[in-house]
Amino acid sequence: MSQPKFYLALLHNPVYNKNMKVITTTVTNLDLHDIARASRTYGVKKYYVVNHLKSQQKLVKRMSEYWSSDFGAEYNPDRKEAFSIIDVQAQLEDVIADIENIEGEKPVVVTTDARTYPNTVGYKELREKIQQGTTPYLILLGTGWGLTKEVMDSADYILEPIYGAGEYNHLSVRSAASIILDRLLSGKK
Amino acid sequence: MSQPKFYLALLHNPVYNKNMKVITTTVTNLDLHDIARASRTYGVKKYYVVNHLKSQQKLVKRMSEYWSSDFGAEYNPDRKEAFSIIDVQAQLEDVIADIENIEGEKPVVVTTDARTYPNTVGYKELREKIQQGTTPYLILLGTGWGLTKEVMDSADYILEPIYGAGEYNHLSVRSAASIILDRLLSGKK
Repeated sequence: MSQPKFYLALLHNPVYNKNMKVITTTVTNLDLHDIARASRTYGVKKYYVVNHLKSQQKLVKRMSEYWSSDFGAEYNPDRKEAFSIIDVQAQLEDVIADIENIEGEKPVVVTTDARTYPNTVGYKELREKIQQGTTPYLILLGTGWGLTKEVMDSADYILEPIYGAGEYNHLSVRSAASIILDRLLSGKK
Repeated sequence: MSQPKFYLALLHNPVYNKNMKVITTTVTNLDLHDIARASRTYGVKKYYVVNHLKSQQKLVKRMSEYWSSDFGAEYNPDRKEAFSIIDVQAQLEDVIADIENIEGEKPVVVTTDARTYPNTVGYKELREKIQQGTTPYLILLGTGWGLTKEVMDSADYILEPIYGAGEYNHLSVRSAASIILDRLLSGKK
């Protein structure tokens, strides 16, 4: 069994706003920190932050540089290591091209949603596929009010919803990312 | 099988700082939002924010009032519901007294740590105990550089570390809380 070829992308565009209009959301500080730390902990090869705005791309790069600077790296070396797996891309197509460039083949693209679809896949099933380590996998996370229909339709699989204890199910993207990584990639439990 | 009597507390005091000095940390906006949303999703009865500073207690109360106000509740009703389970207490003893008052018995206190101890408990074992729904359980999460030795020593159980994919293990408290709740309280997977 080889190391999983696992990639994660947080999409700031194209996503819906509250009124189902397609927008670009802004980068949130803790989306970088929390998801980078969880990604590094679970052996994710790259955590892509997807935003087509140059100003937003610069912001992410400036933060990464801060934590890999002499001061940042000395103050908190773990954070440097977490930020080292962050990569900024303008759009989903660029992420897929980057992975194809690294792995020699396109990744299987998996999205997440609160509803179920004909191509919904369970955690156990997806975990087994990923752990074989043969094909690269890319999990997409949305921001705002979620990924657009076009992105959802383009995915190979849609992960089944995370069921809590009842009807209420409103996890932050940071919580959802952590739980998904734990379910798919954790070591011994 | 009854509904688990499950409580969560985020301690801002007493915790260590980077130099192992005992301090009080400040409340972080997203620690309230993310952990309240995850707690509500997984059926936690109360999420205690523990801080002995009156100014910090007021801050938490003001945020809760905002999300339950007419404007906040209309803008995002899910957030109102998440914040409704937050309770502010000055210290751990007050949390335990509050649970005893509600449940008629003291909770079993469980902490988390990156090391293992003689009273370390696994997730599967603890999940089974909790799911019986007879005894109340309280999970403690630390801020800063972690819970003090005194708090650790006073706990009934210490949850085993969350193993990622390798040596690196530096999850945010928000990620750790989400993963712990998912492992102990999730519905069907």
